[in-house]
Amino acid sequence: MERKVFLDSASTTYVNAEVLQEMLPVFDTVYGNANSLHNFGRAANELLDKARDRVAKAINAKASEIYFTSGGTEANNWAIKGLVYANNLKGNHIITSQIEHDSVLETFKELEHEGFRVTYLPVDKNGIVNLANLMHVLSSNTILVSIMTANNEVGTIQHINAISKTVKEKGILFHTDAVQAFSNLKIDVKELNVDAMTLSSHKIYGPKGIGALYVKRGVKIKNLLIGGSQEFSKRAGTVNVPAAVGFGKAAELAIRDMKATNDKTKNLRDYFIRELKNHITGIHINGHPIQRLPHIANVSFDYIDGESIMLMLDLDGIAVSTGAACSSGDTKESHVLRAMGVPTELIKNTIRFSFTKRTTKEEINYVIEKLEVIVKKLRDISPLTKRIKKER
Amino acid sequence: MERKVFLDSASTTYVNAEVLQEMLPVFDTVYGNANSLHNFGRAANELLDKARDRVAKAINAKASEIYFTSGGTEANNWAIKGLVYANNLKGNHIITSQIEHDSVLETFKELEHEGFRVTYLPVDKNGIVNLANLMHVLSSNTILVSIMTANNEVGTIQHINAISKTVKEKGILFHTDAVQAFSNLKIDVKELNVDAMTLSSHKIYGPKGIGALYVKRGVKIKNLLIGGSQEFSKRAGTVNVPAAVGFGKAAELAIRDMKATNDKTKNLRDYFIRELKNHITGIHINGHPIQRLPHIANVSFDYIDGESIMLMLDLDGIAVSTGAACSSGDTKESHVLRAMGVPTELIKNTIRFSFTKRTTKEEINYVIEKLEVIVKKLRDISPLTKRIKKER
Repeated sequence: MERKVFLDSASTTYVNAEVLQEMLPVFDTVYGNANSLHNFGRAANELLDKARDRVAKAINAKASEIYFTSGGTEANNWAIKGLVYANNLKGNHIITSQIEHDSVLETFKELEHEGFRVTYLPVDKNGIVNLANLMHVLSSNTILVSIMTANNEVGTIQHINAISKTVKEKGILFHTDAVQAFSNLKIDVKELNVDAMTLSSHKIYGPKGIGALYVKRGVKIKNLLIGGSQEFSKRAGTVNVPAAVGFGKAAELAIRDMKATNDKTKNLRDYFIRELKNHITGIHINGHPIQRLPHIANVSFDYIDGESIMLMLDLDGIAVSTGAACSSGDTKESHVLRAMGVPTELIKNTIRFSFTKRTTKEEINYVIEKLEVIVKKLRDISPLTKRIKKER
Repeated sequence: MERKVFLDSASTTYVNAEVLQEMLPVFDTVYGNANSLHNFGRAANELLDKARDRVAKAINAKASEIYFTSGGTEANNWAIKGLVYANNLKGNHIITSQIEHDSVLETFKELEHEGFRVTYLPVDKNGIVNLANLMHVLSSNTILVSIMTANNEVGTIQHINAISKTVKEKGILFHTDAVQAFSNLKIDVKELNVDAMTLSSHKIYGPKGIGALYVKRGVKIKNLLIGGSQEFSKRAGTVNVPAAVGFGKAAELAIRDMKATNDKTKNLRDYFIRELKNHITGIHINGHPIQRLPHIANVSFDYIDGESIMLMLDLDGIAVSTGAACSSGDTKESHVLRAMGVPTELIKNTIRFSFTKRTTKEEINYVIEKLEVIVKKLRDISPLTKRIKKER
């Protein structure tokens, strides 16, 4: 028997059965181009409207404020460049944090290269952006602040309401990447008073290849993808209707089941951490102890390399990520753990366990059992462990 | 009985059953992030590799030269901006034609706005770019030429080999938008010696939301979407594996069945035009009489508005486009017909009929029958017809 346990839901999720069910007819029955005026087009457009409504409702936005994109990366690229280029007469200072997703950080780096002045805000040891720090750097020259709602590697949730209030009081644009927070946190764009928000489908049991950018009515933003007049003339390209339909359904289910899902994954996650502590010594849980997404446990192991743990867990059919999160193909050091001040020798020793809606206690027991063996084995052969033992 | 006939395949196609079959397990079984190193990720990545191979093979490229995008629009935006920005030390002159897709034209307009000098080459009455014209404008200051392989509104096929040869002899970069040509024409990027080529899935019976950019090995291109290291670090964002799998299969089937499909749709198209001429007077077929995609018939009707024809056909369950093609939501005048010198009074009077793999002769008879009635009805109430009759 080859057992498979997927504990990498922060990287991507399977598509929920109900979601897939709604998508299927859109591939070969209601397959029209949503921009076409004939009945095939109108039928597709009706489904698109419904999907847009569902995504809007999930964050208390108007449907006309939701623009579908090909995913979170496009939405983050677009939000930042689009807001900056459309509002760059005011100044040339932009702000983000050191723990953002690469699609945010790389965009800021490109803008820095173009001549914008960028502040990369530090975070504390729990991954929290300090509000006083932020207030200190805001100036009349600041165009945009972009700070993620919750972090994808360690799960830390920012004081996003307070941040937004501070930024908006100064009349500065505020964008938040809510990809990892969406479906786990109640998000209300009206209450939050955010100008733009990035959402993605494939982290909430919807299909890959679709995301959305919320842009508050009246906020000026330059287009990123240009051509046809799709998405209220804001995002060109034939709309991916089946994926939008799936995303809409996934958003609806996520909101409906949020409490139950969170309770379940949090219980499992906490059980996992307790068991981990009971069975394995020399571990460190990263991220805020309380203010943290319920389905993520980011753990550093003394003396042993995260990649080795990951590869050995994989031999037992268990899928996890090293610290370097979403694009785990990268084996570069985690900039998130670095910014949080995790000691260099521990950064590489880190594994992110992220639980799904269908993870079971029994699976967790299996993982703990395997992990105990693996950690012992790796520590036994680790030159670091040997040195430490010798020194004692 | 509500009858439905789809004659708008140049706008989008249904997903072929075999294609959908290959995609299904990728939604909820092989759902890993293709960038993850564990078994879920590797399984997804294997499917992605296979899909990339299939797309590459369809145009005789190497797999490593194929970069998946969210569709044709992104690929066109990326190709043009990416090639220009990465090679702008050489000069500031760029060339395209007046009949390109909006995602090409809008990108050239944006570059023009940024200070690049743009030549929009004219076409003859059949929609063909004149090679002498092109040679005349090429200079040592020219960075890029982008000319589509075949036009999406009228179906005219360019002398793309001769164009490429001319451009490449001068050491200038050449890009072609092959979205509408792909699956209808044998395309060999090696033979063509093109630097970049845009492809799309949802015009060849594959899913929406996926396309590809071919970039010849060694050609420098700046990234458009930035963040993670996906797609050989050329295009960030979690790869849409199910859609890529569908695209790969659709490409494979398109090449396998090309001759049979072309023969079939060309026969039907030609039958349609013959019948049209037999039953309706005052019609004009646009596009090159011979050098033209087999599944497109672009027809102008004397005295009556294309949009009215389209809407009335729609009442009979028949889906067609007005001249303004892909994003038929636009009712703006066709820039393609304008460039071809179609008289102003006829441009608005145009319908594009584009046939699918499953269009039947019987459907065409039904369309002709309905069209005859509609055209008569519209002409009877047309003030233009009345004026013409009076003048006689």
